[in-house]
Amino acid sequence: MKIEILCTGDEILTGKTTNTNYSFIAQKLTENCLDVVHGTSVGDDRNSLKQAFLQAAKRADAVIVNGGLGPTVDDLSQKIAADTAGVELECYEEWLDSLKSYYQSRGRKMPENNTKQAMLPAGSELLDNPIGTACGFALDIAGARFFFTPGVPREMMRMVTEQVLPRLLSMSGTRNVSRLKRFHTFGIGESRADQLLADLIPTENEESIKLGFQTHYPQLETKLAVQAENDAQINDLLEPIVAQLRSKLGNAILCEDDQTLESVILDRLALNGDSLSCMEMATAGAVANRLMKAIKDDALLHQCIVSPTIDRLCTAVNLTTDATPRSAELAAVLAETQSKSTGSTHSLVVLTDEVKGKTSSELVVSIGIYGPQGSSQRTAILPGNTGWTRLGATELALDCLRRYVSGLPVDEKIDFEKAQTT
Amino acid sequence: MKIEILCTGDEILTGKTTNTNYSFIAQKLTENCLDVVHGTSVGDDRNSLKQAFLQAAKRADAVIVNGGLGPTVDDLSQKIAADTAGVELECYEEWLDSLKSYYQSRGRKMPENNTKQAMLPAGSELLDNPIGTACGFALDIAGARFFFTPGVPREMMRMVTEQVLPRLLSMSGTRNVSRLKRFHTFGIGESRADQLLADLIPTENEESIKLGFQTHYPQLETKLAVQAENDAQINDLLEPIVAQLRSKLGNAILCEDDQTLESVILDRLALNGDSLSCMEMATAGAVANRLMKAIKDDALLHQCIVSPTIDRLCTAVNLTTDATPRSAELAAVLAETQSKSTGSTHSLVVLTDEVKGKTSSELVVSIGIYGPQGSSQRTAILPGNTGWTRLGATELALDCLRRYVSGLPVDEKIDFEKAQTT
Repeated sequence: MKIEILCTGDEILTGKTTNTNYSFIAQKLTENCLDVVHGTSVGDDRNSLKQAFLQAAKRADAVIVNGGLGPTVDDLSQKIAADTAGVELECYEEWLDSLKSYYQSRGRKMPENNTKQAMLPAGSELLDNPIGTACGFALDIAGARFFFTPGVPREMMRMVTEQVLPRLLSMSGTRNVSRLKRFHTFGIGESRADQLLADLIPTENEESIKLGFQTHYPQLETKLAVQAENDAQINDLLEPIVAQLRSKLGNAILCEDDQTLESVILDRLALNGDSLSCMEMATAGAVANRLMKAIKDDALLHQCIVSPTIDRLCTAVNLTTDATPRSAELAAVLAETQSKSTGSTHSLVVLTDEVKGKTSSELVVSIGIYGPQGSSQRTAILPGNTGWTRLGATELALDCLRRYVSGLPVDEKIDFEKAQTT
Repeated sequence: MKIEILCTGDEILTGKTTNTNYSFIAQKLTENCLDVVHGTSVGDDRNSLKQAFLQAAKRADAVIVNGGLGPTVDDLSQKIAADTAGVELECYEEWLDSLKSYYQSRGRKMPENNTKQAMLPAGSELLDNPIGTACGFALDIAGARFFFTPGVPREMMRMVTEQVLPRLLSMSGTRNVSRLKRFHTFGIGESRADQLLADLIPTENEESIKLGFQTHYPQLETKLAVQAENDAQINDLLEPIVAQLRSKLGNAILCEDDQTLESVILDRLALNGDSLSCMEMATAGAVANRLMKAIKDDALLHQCIVSPTIDRLCTAVNLTTDATPRSAELAAVLAETQSKSTGSTHSLVVLTDEVKGKTSSELVVSIGIYGPQGSSQRTAILPGNTGWTRLGATELALDCLRRYVSGLPVDEKIDFEKAQTT
């Protein structure tokens, strides 16, 4: 069964509002193994709407229309739906009564123009909206089943979940089970991951398991979408492939599924009763920001110090050094000093030095970690503009810490760093 | 001239990725008085892509295609564009050379599958991508001009702005001059701004000047899009309206056009030879992050200390207090202590206390500022979930500092705070 999602309204069409309604609906259907084949956005004008309805009816078996059910004159969905289906608008008394009670319960009289919201194309099936004044409706237009839903996000979410989804599942008949298995890596580019995993899926399973990638730099997400008759079959299909994938992507795997790099680090620290402090320069507080957003237990994080200069970082922990090269050695000394002065078991220090060239720039990142297993160091040169290298440096620093607390080598090269000649 | 935006990729189609690329492109065109008439999303399969190209060519004069230019097998845009246009793919040596240098400059050999990114439909006009490996291209397909752009947001943004937009403007023929004047405010909600500015545009100018709002919480952007025969006319039209707008939005105006709140603060500090330190709790390093990203002169920012607990903030500046209520008084004392210990002329301290209720939560924010004009304090209760109130608290803290360094009152109420009964 093919499904189209059709979003209406000038706000969406002109990009004023980011179309999160589309994402919600599409995700909800996809998670339920329903096939979204097309997404359309059109403005609030009669001709565009009518054309879009007719084209969607040709492409899809079911169409979810979002928006255009409000009480004002520029809300045209009911009218154009009726025109396109060749039926009249009728007053649905049942909804008119709901509207009147809705206003009454709020101690107000229903404004006259809300009557419009009870006028539906003849033959429509009413879709309840328990939290708003716009009811939805379902109607056959040009051979496809159309589901009209309100544009207000929370009303749409509830109607899609409670009213539209069950109807679509019932339309689609008996269905398979599906699962999405995800791996988050750092340090492997999409093309290399593609090469590494070229032979992962045996030819005989290509219909049941699909391999896909999504780059959210600096992380790469590798996904296995599996479909089968039942959960046991999915497990059997996945098991050998997941084992192979884990071995091929190796230490670059930060975490899986809903885990995050930060949560892996903090969980590991919590498990051992450990704690952390950090200091950072051109990563600009991003290390602190990511850890602080993820912590559940205040005791895990003692302090993060952010400063644009190395002298001030040294001053902050009362470290006197004659020379202040931005080296990994200095980062490690700073980490040890901070750890001892704050009483945290671990400290992560990221020093950075931006080198701007004529056409490009690069960031020299020096990372020092101190903890119960002693000092660790890592240096890398990251090419790219400031925003880009800052993201990379933040990820690299957190990844080094993950490796340290997980007992993995801290200094494995990544695809995003420049080879060093020394 | 009618324009369609066609977004490709399973990630977009299935709602996994929210389609912010669409919003960016549509906004950019709309702000330049270009007419977006249709938005389409389709997956990465040959048939859907080909059908979408043909349908778009029927509806529009120009089509911007986003996504599908990557090096992997599921990136199909070049191939399907060539098929649909009835031409072959050709190797664009110019781009192949760029790719090779790109990898060389990073000390790596180009992976073989990247060659695919230099294969374009014969007759295409190459669109430069100075920051990535996917070049764009422009090509006539079925009577419409197609512009193919990469899916990576920052690459897309740059290509649309620098390559696609000028070509569209030139296609659209002789045009009036247009300008977009923008105001960024904090503390005024969209509906109140709409009321405040209801009579701003004189009826006789409604065709030439359009007033619009865009909420990027916590900031509100108020936009005047002006069209006229020439720049002088635009100036004449804008001048009285801008004056009135500035007076109506008053101190809530953080900055205008491309300025940012951070740049206003840092410029003001730089002008007076001043400097800054800060401390923060549940804003989680976001104050530090925003200031550090914006600074051009390292001397302006001495240090930022981030910690989840107030005790550790006090320890960090060697402040001993018996009681540690999270009050604005304590924030001011901490600010004075930090300023004196680091030698910065100013210090900003944001203490936060999250209060979770049964159905909602709120954040109590206590802000203290110390500087040459003495101490300032501000307390506010921000209702909402953690992510939301953290954004609000960060903005409020920076806004208080802006007001302090600009000689404006620090304690004007904002629309987003809860009225306090005491």
